[in-house]
Amino acid sequence: MNNFIYDIPVKVYFGQNQLCHLGEELSRYGTRILLTYGGGSIKKSGLYDKVIAEIERAGLQVFELSGIEPNPRIDSVRQGAQMCKDHNIDVLLAVGGGSTLDATKFMAAGACVDHDPWDFLSEKWAPITKALPIVTILTLSATGSEMDCAGVISNPETQDKIGRLEAPLLPKASFLDPTLTYSVNAYQTACGAADMISHILEVYFNMEKDLYMLDCFMEGLLKTIIRFAPVAIEKPDDYEARANLMWASSWAINGFINGGKRLAWSCHPIEHELSAIYDITHGLGLAIITPRWLEYCLDETTVSRYVQFGINVFNINPEQAPMDIARQAIDRLADFFFNTLRLDSTLGKVGITAEHFPIMAQKACRGKVLRGFKPLQQQDIEKIFEMSL
Amino acid sequence: MNNFIYDIPVKVYFGQNQLCHLGEELSRYGTRILLTYGGGSIKKSGLYDKVIAEIERAGLQVFELSGIEPNPRIDSVRQGAQMCKDHNIDVLLAVGGGSTLDATKFMAAGACVDHDPWDFLSEKWAPITKALPIVTILTLSATGSEMDCAGVISNPETQDKIGRLEAPLLPKASFLDPTLTYSVNAYQTACGAADMISHILEVYFNMEKDLYMLDCFMEGLLKTIIRFAPVAIEKPDDYEARANLMWASSWAINGFINGGKRLAWSCHPIEHELSAIYDITHGLGLAIITPRWLEYCLDETTVSRYVQFGINVFNINPEQAPMDIARQAIDRLADFFFNTLRLDSTLGKVGITAEHFPIMAQKACRGKVLRGFKPLQQQDIEKIFEMSL
Repeated sequence: MNNFIYDIPVKVYFGQNQLCHLGEELSRYGTRILLTYGGGSIKKSGLYDKVIAEIERAGLQVFELSGIEPNPRIDSVRQGAQMCKDHNIDVLLAVGGGSTLDATKFMAAGACVDHDPWDFLSEKWAPITKALPIVTILTLSATGSEMDCAGVISNPETQDKIGRLEAPLLPKASFLDPTLTYSVNAYQTACGAADMISHILEVYFNMEKDLYMLDCFMEGLLKTIIRFAPVAIEKPDDYEARANLMWASSWAINGFINGGKRLAWSCHPIEHELSAIYDITHGLGLAIITPRWLEYCLDETTVSRYVQFGINVFNINPEQAPMDIARQAIDRLADFFFNTLRLDSTLGKVGITAEHFPIMAQKACRGKVLRGFKPLQQQDIEKIFEMSL
Repeated sequence: MNNFIYDIPVKVYFGQNQLCHLGEELSRYGTRILLTYGGGSIKKSGLYDKVIAEIERAGLQVFELSGIEPNPRIDSVRQGAQMCKDHNIDVLLAVGGGSTLDATKFMAAGACVDHDPWDFLSEKWAPITKALPIVTILTLSATGSEMDCAGVISNPETQDKIGRLEAPLLPKASFLDPTLTYSVNAYQTACGAADMISHILEVYFNMEKDLYMLDCFMEGLLKTIIRFAPVAIEKPDDYEARANLMWASSWAINGFINGGKRLAWSCHPIEHELSAIYDITHGLGLAIITPRWLEYCLDETTVSRYVQFGINVFNINPEQAPMDIARQAIDRLADFFFNTLRLDSTLGKVGITAEHFPIMAQKACRGKVLRGFKPLQQQDIEKIFEMSL
C-alpha cells in the first residue's frame, strides 16, 4: 500500500440556484473575466443570460471566447491564452462540459507563459507551474474536469490527443447544478456514463494493494451510475438521477479513489488514439474498448479482481468458478453499455476500419509499453482494437 | 434533496514517513509554533523526538503545551490561547487524538479574541470568524477532528460538554500515519471504531431525501470499520487494518457524507451528557446508547432505513418482513459493539446509575426538542438512558 497526498481544495456549489454565489467566487480573484463556452447551447437554455447577469451584478468585466469544440483543439487554447494576455484577464470562467473545461485549463496555464501552449502537451512537456484561477459551471456529467487538475487537448495537425495532470490546473470553484444537465440527450448521457465508469475501472482494475474502503467507494460509484444513467435517459429531468450522476462524475476522477495506486491507465490512452483520428465521442470509444480490454487482460493472475467486481457491482452469484464469474462480469458490463445505454457496440458500427490500428497502437504506448492493469505493448493494443472491430 | 457546498481544503499526508513534509507545511504559516499534546505517550513512542527534529530542521521555534486530557477541558484551551498571545504564535501543531486536536482548534480561535474561549461554547455563542492555522499529526483513529472543522470541549465547573463546527477551525494539513496507531490498545481501538460508526449512523439514519451515491459510501465505510476494527484489535500492527480505519475515520465526519442533509444529530448530544458528568470514553458511551436509540426510533415510518442498513451492511436476508430485518440489524450492531469489540454493554457496567438521567436528558435537548432522525424530547431521552442501564 503506497503513501499518498490528498489535496482537493475545489469548492463545489451543488444544487439548484447556486449561481447567486458566482459573483462572490469570481471576485476573489479579480475583476476581469474570460468567459469560455462551446457551441452556444448555453444561450438557448438561458444559462448564458443568467451568468452574464451575475457577472454584471458583481460589477465585473467580461470577455468572451465561444466555439470551443468537443475534443477541444489546441487552436482554441492558443486563442484563449492570447485573449488572457491581451485583456489582462484575472480569472477564467468555463461554462460547459469537459471539453470547454479542459481547454480553459490550458488557456489559464498558457496565459502565464511566453511559449506556444502546445509545448505543454508535445514532447517538450513544458512545465506547468502556474495558471490563472479557473471557475467552472458544469453542464454535462462525464469527464470530472470540474474537480480534477487534468485536461485533454487534440492537435489535428499532428493527429495527437494528449492529456496532462498538473496541480495549477485545478479549478478554484465549480458550480454543479443537476438541472443544467436536463437538456443532455440520451446519447450524450450514455457516453458520459461510459466515461465515468471507465474512470473508475482504470483505477479499480489494478493489482496493487489498495484500501478496501476505496474499493467499496468505487463499487458504490459504479452501482450509482449503473442505476441512474438509464433513469436519466428515460426521464431527462429526474433530479435524483441527474444529481447522482453529476456528483459521481466528480468523484470518479478527482483522485480520492486512487489512494496511492501508481499504475497508469489503459483504456483512456487507447481511446484517445481513436478519437484523435476519428473524432468520435470519447465516452463511446471507451464503451467499445473497455469490455475488450477487460477480456484481453483476464487471466489467472488478474481474475480475483473481476470476481470482486462481478459480485459487488452486478450481484453475480459467488458460488461459481472464478473464471465464470469474471466472464459474466464482462458480459454484464458490455450488456449495460450496448443494450441498456444503447451505445454502438463495435468500431465497425461507427465507421472505423483497421487501417490505422498499427499507428494508433504505436502511439498509444508511445512505442514502448503501456503500463496499466497489465502491461500492453503495441501488438497487444492492436489486438484489442481488432477485438473491438 | 437539499443543496450543499462542498469545501474541504485540508491537505492530508497519508502513510508512513511523511513527516519529512512537516517543516514545509508549518513554514507556510510562520516560524513560531505551539506544539500541543496529551499525556506524554508521544515521548515514549519516539514521535515527539521526530517532530522536534523536523521542526528544528526547518529552523522554526517551538513552544509546548502538554497534558491535554481526554474529554479536553476548557482550562487547557484557555492556557493554550494565552500562550499563543504571549508568544506571538503563528501556527499550532496538535499531535495526538481527537481530544488534543479539538482543544487545539479552540486555542487557535481563542488566540484571535480578547474574551474567554468558553464564550465560544457557552450560551453566549461568541462568533468564530478566524483562528490561527492548525496542523495536526494524528495518533488515534476516531473523532475525525483531523479533517473537520468541529471540536468538543468540556467544562467541569458547569458539567457541560459542548461541540461546535466553524470553518476557521478546519486544519490546514493533517498527517495520517497508520503506524502511529499501532500502540493504541484494544479498548481504545474499539471505542474509536464505535465513535466512527456513530458518526456515520447519525447521518445515515435520517429520513431526508438523500443521494444514493452517498448511501453507498456510508455503507462502504461501515463495512470497512466492521471488517478492520477486529483485525486491528487482534493484530495491532496490521497496516492494512490501521490504514483503513484511519482514512475511514476522516471520511466518516468530514462533511462529504452529509450531501445537504440538514437534520441534527441525536446520539452525540445524548452521549455528551454522559461523558460530561461521568468522564467515560466518548466511543464507549456511543456504543451503549446507539443500539437503544435505534430501537427507540424504529417504527413504520422509519423502518425502511433499517432495512437498507441491515441488508447492505450486514448482508441480512432481504426475504423477510421489514420489521424483522430491522430488529436483526440492531441486534447485529449491538453484537458487534458488545461481543466482537468487547465493549461494556450497559451504563450499569460502567458504574452509571439513573440518578442524573432527568438533568442529563434535559440538557441534551436544551429543554426543548432534539431534532434528529426522530425528534426527541426530554422524556424520550430519559427513556433511552433507561433502556441503556
